[in-house]
Amino acid sequence: MTNSRIQHLALRDRIMSAEDAASLITNGTTIGMSGFTGSGYPKSVPLALAARIEAEHAAGNPFKVKIWSGASTGPELDGALAKADGIEFRLPYNSDPIAREKINAGEMNYFDLHLSQVAPMAWQGFLGKLDTAVVEVSGIAEDGALIPSSSIGNNKTWLDQAETIILEVNRWQSEALNGMHDIYYGTALPPNRKPIPLVRPDDRIGEKYFRVNPDKIAAIVETEAPDRNLPFAEPDDVATAIAKHLLDFFAHEVKSGRLPASLLPLQSGVGNVTNAVLTGLMHAPYGDMTAYTEVIQDGMLDLLEAGKLRMASATAFSLSPEAALRFNRDARKFHDKLILRPQEISNHPELVRRLGCIAMNGMIEADIFGNVNSTHIMGSRIQNGIGGSGDFARNAYVSIFMTPSTAKQGKISAIVPKVSHVDHINQDVQVIVTEQGLADLRGLSPKQRADVIIENCVHPSYRDAIRDYYRRARQTSFGKHAPTLLNEALSWHQRYVETGTML
Amino acid sequence: MTNSRIQHLALRDRIMSAEDAASLITNGTTIGMSGFTGSGYPKSVPLALAARIEAEHAAGNPFKVKIWSGASTGPELDGALAKADGIEFRLPYNSDPIAREKINAGEMNYFDLHLSQVAPMAWQGFLGKLDTAVVEVSGIAEDGALIPSSSIGNNKTWLDQAETIILEVNRWQSEALNGMHDIYYGTALPPNRKPIPLVRPDDRIGEKYFRVNPDKIAAIVETEAPDRNLPFAEPDDVATAIAKHLLDFFAHEVKSGRLPASLLPLQSGVGNVTNAVLTGLMHAPYGDMTAYTEVIQDGMLDLLEAGKLRMASATAFSLSPEAALRFNRDARKFHDKLILRPQEISNHPELVRRLGCIAMNGMIEADIFGNVNSTHIMGSRIQNGIGGSGDFARNAYVSIFMTPSTAKQGKISAIVPKVSHVDHINQDVQVIVTEQGLADLRGLSPKQRADVIIENCVHPSYRDAIRDYYRRARQTSFGKHAPTLLNEALSWHQRYVETGTML
Repeated sequence: MTNSRIQHLALRDRIMSAEDAASLITNGTTIGMSGFTGSGYPKSVPLALAARIEAEHAAGNPFKVKIWSGASTGPELDGALAKADGIEFRLPYNSDPIAREKINAGEMNYFDLHLSQVAPMAWQGFLGKLDTAVVEVSGIAEDGALIPSSSIGNNKTWLDQAETIILEVNRWQSEALNGMHDIYYGTALPPNRKPIPLVRPDDRIGEKYFRVNPDKIAAIVETEAPDRNLPFAEPDDVATAIAKHLLDFFAHEVKSGRLPASLLPLQSGVGNVTNAVLTGLMHAPYGDMTAYTEVIQDGMLDLLEAGKLRMASATAFSLSPEAALRFNRDARKFHDKLILRPQEISNHPELVRRLGCIAMNGMIEADIFGNVNSTHIMGSRIQNGIGGSGDFARNAYVSIFMTPSTAKQGKISAIVPKVSHVDHINQDVQVIVTEQGLADLRGLSPKQRADVIIENCVHPSYRDAIRDYYRRARQTSFGKHAPTLLNEALSWHQRYVETGTML
Repeated sequence: MTNSRIQHLALRDRIMSAEDAASLITNGTTIGMSGFTGSGYPKSVPLALAARIEAEHAAGNPFKVKIWSGASTGPELDGALAKADGIEFRLPYNSDPIAREKINAGEMNYFDLHLSQVAPMAWQGFLGKLDTAVVEVSGIAEDGALIPSSSIGNNKTWLDQAETIILEVNRWQSEALNGMHDIYYGTALPPNRKPIPLVRPDDRIGEKYFRVNPDKIAAIVETEAPDRNLPFAEPDDVATAIAKHLLDFFAHEVKSGRLPASLLPLQSGVGNVTNAVLTGLMHAPYGDMTAYTEVIQDGMLDLLEAGKLRMASATAFSLSPEAALRFNRDARKFHDKLILRPQEISNHPELVRRLGCIAMNGMIEADIFGNVNSTHIMGSRIQNGIGGSGDFARNAYVSIFMTPSTAKQGKISAIVPKVSHVDHINQDVQVIVTEQGLADLRGLSPKQRADVIIENCVHPSYRDAIRDYYRRARQTSFGKHAPTLLNEALSWHQRYVETGTML
């Protein structure tokens, strides 16, 4: 391996093995890791740290760390450290299955929070002290500036705040990433905050590289390892039906003059359903579109290449292995059409509201009044976390939540009498879509919302039951503004826990 | 009554009786009313309209209207129209007891939404068409400009959007209001939204008067009627204890360097507890404070007069009759220290986050994980509405919710296993305060939050029961991230509905 990705000569002295770097981390350390939706996370030091923790545990010594990140990372980080019982506390997001099991077994403390608020809360001193940053970069320039990797996340904040910095320089990342980033250095603590000078998704308001105090860099580890890129699944019939309902809605809104012909900046969560929507947009009559979102997905590359999407702004990539190869191969083509920003900017309420984003997010369940649960299965088991959905949903021009109407082969209804946990209050949910249909909730009272959701979104196998519940609730509820039967409201979930089906 | 408040000579031709003005409104009309926290609402035309509706109903004719407002109004508006069964649909906030009963009896559709979003959603076309504006002003200038009254609310939007305008010119309002308002005319629909150029609560970014197309003014009614000013209640022991816990927290935060010595712009809901906090601030060591909030309350006048508060920005007054008299008498003294703005600006997420407001809001109940219900009693009966609490709580520097630990002479616990409705998700709740103590939830996982809330905030008469619930939940919950017993989670509320007590 040559040192060509490290242009700053003095810093080459700090190149060491992952094991040596991991030895700089001690029990109880709070670590700010890079990584967002499985891209740009450190892949080597966390593995070495996990091995070290296992050895310490085997020797009877306590060893746990606190992990902060951008969002989700990969098996070499959350997976390995959770498997080693090495994580005492985790924020702000996790999608790793091993870590998830530890959290839901009550063995790991996890605090999920709005992704836009992680950096401000860290600066405000609300999260405690950050000891060490472990950040993947794609290179180090001659003057010591750090060339970011395939995600930005909270890296600027971790590099600024940590006492000690460990860098991973990953040769796998495309050199064409250089110049694609926009690191805004204008944030401050109140009373010194200023307007963020971004008025179009295309605007560049920052710098291409991370500033860093080289004296804080304690170790540099060279790697050549791919991101956790998950295979792309072709949209199934259910996802395609959801996308069709949503595209019909867009067409209707454009026709009614409530959306411009190029729509408004798109935000979309990750997954099968949003991929179907992006695929649908390939064949829809909208041009000059933009995305102002968290992650760049496969479908966005297609839209960019087809010229339907003018540009996309995000904080990270989340590509399939094929799309990652394609991006690395054709990076020059995408270079001027993609901007990666810190997550406090990609998700900033000020900007989401100003730009008027169309927010499209997945969910676990909604209730008949339009409250949405996107995190807690049966009210107690965390799936991933709220992520940026709250940043976007509350401030969007129109906030859309989508899901198949059932899960687990029909044993779970995604529309329930009452959600078992609330992430998005009804005021932040304008549209709900399932493959059954679309519920446009704008300007409706609770009972009007219930009528629309029950008739348009519920799977036929649950429709009679929910109609029956709601009819009885309207008769005997304590209050008849949002009719609720308290002793039945969560009974569908209880039935699932007891019998394995809500039916 | 002289015409001295109407300086525009041509418009004097449109002066008429409230009855004649009300006759311009027909069945099915959507009316944008002025009014916010019982100030600046029209007091004469709605009464005449209610009489007309009762007469039509007596004659067997249908007659209902849709009412949009800033926030709450007074008995002459919501009370009279609800009593006449004249309101088909109401948004975005109500605190009138007669209207509340109609809503909770299932006889009136009510859509409560974030107060900052009413105007944007109206412009986006999401709420339907506005037919008529009925707006109280304190005068009409020679050039036709409208001098606002004691609240701004959504008046700018109603005046811009309505086809027909009916004005009430209220001589009771102080002439010193002239110049105290700041009407921002820079809002737009995306993609044309720009940064809002406000960086201090003191900044004036707009105009002193409403612009209006005089051709749309169909009627002017002269009135001389006080706002619905409620008596000020001296803080009781419970409120004083809550305030003391909160002031101790402020002192600790300032000492720890997490709050500046002049604190940060204060937002506070209305009521007994926040009055106690404002009273406490009179004797606390903070100077040069500011308020960036919805309403100016009695305690703020005291703080302004004492020089503790440099200035206050809001969208409305909410004063006791004594304080209203004092304000009208001493208006000159307060003139340069108060700014009233449209509610989309007073509550704007962009500005709340930039300024770093300290949000202090009341609530009905919180659960052991820090989710807050501030609207729905026993999950189904609406009390008032979410108002601006969501605008502030999510974007605040620190979001605080306060309540006595019990209600109804101890028969209701304000801390419950699971809230019966969610307005503020745990991510938007950093601090919970009851007279029992303060729970600082920053950076804590769900179980860590539960420990702090149960030990610090629950009333002793409920402490054993909630400890017992939580102990069993930790043992048998489906997931142990946020331990929940689905079949018991709402049983406290069910018990109250069935027996009249949660005990």
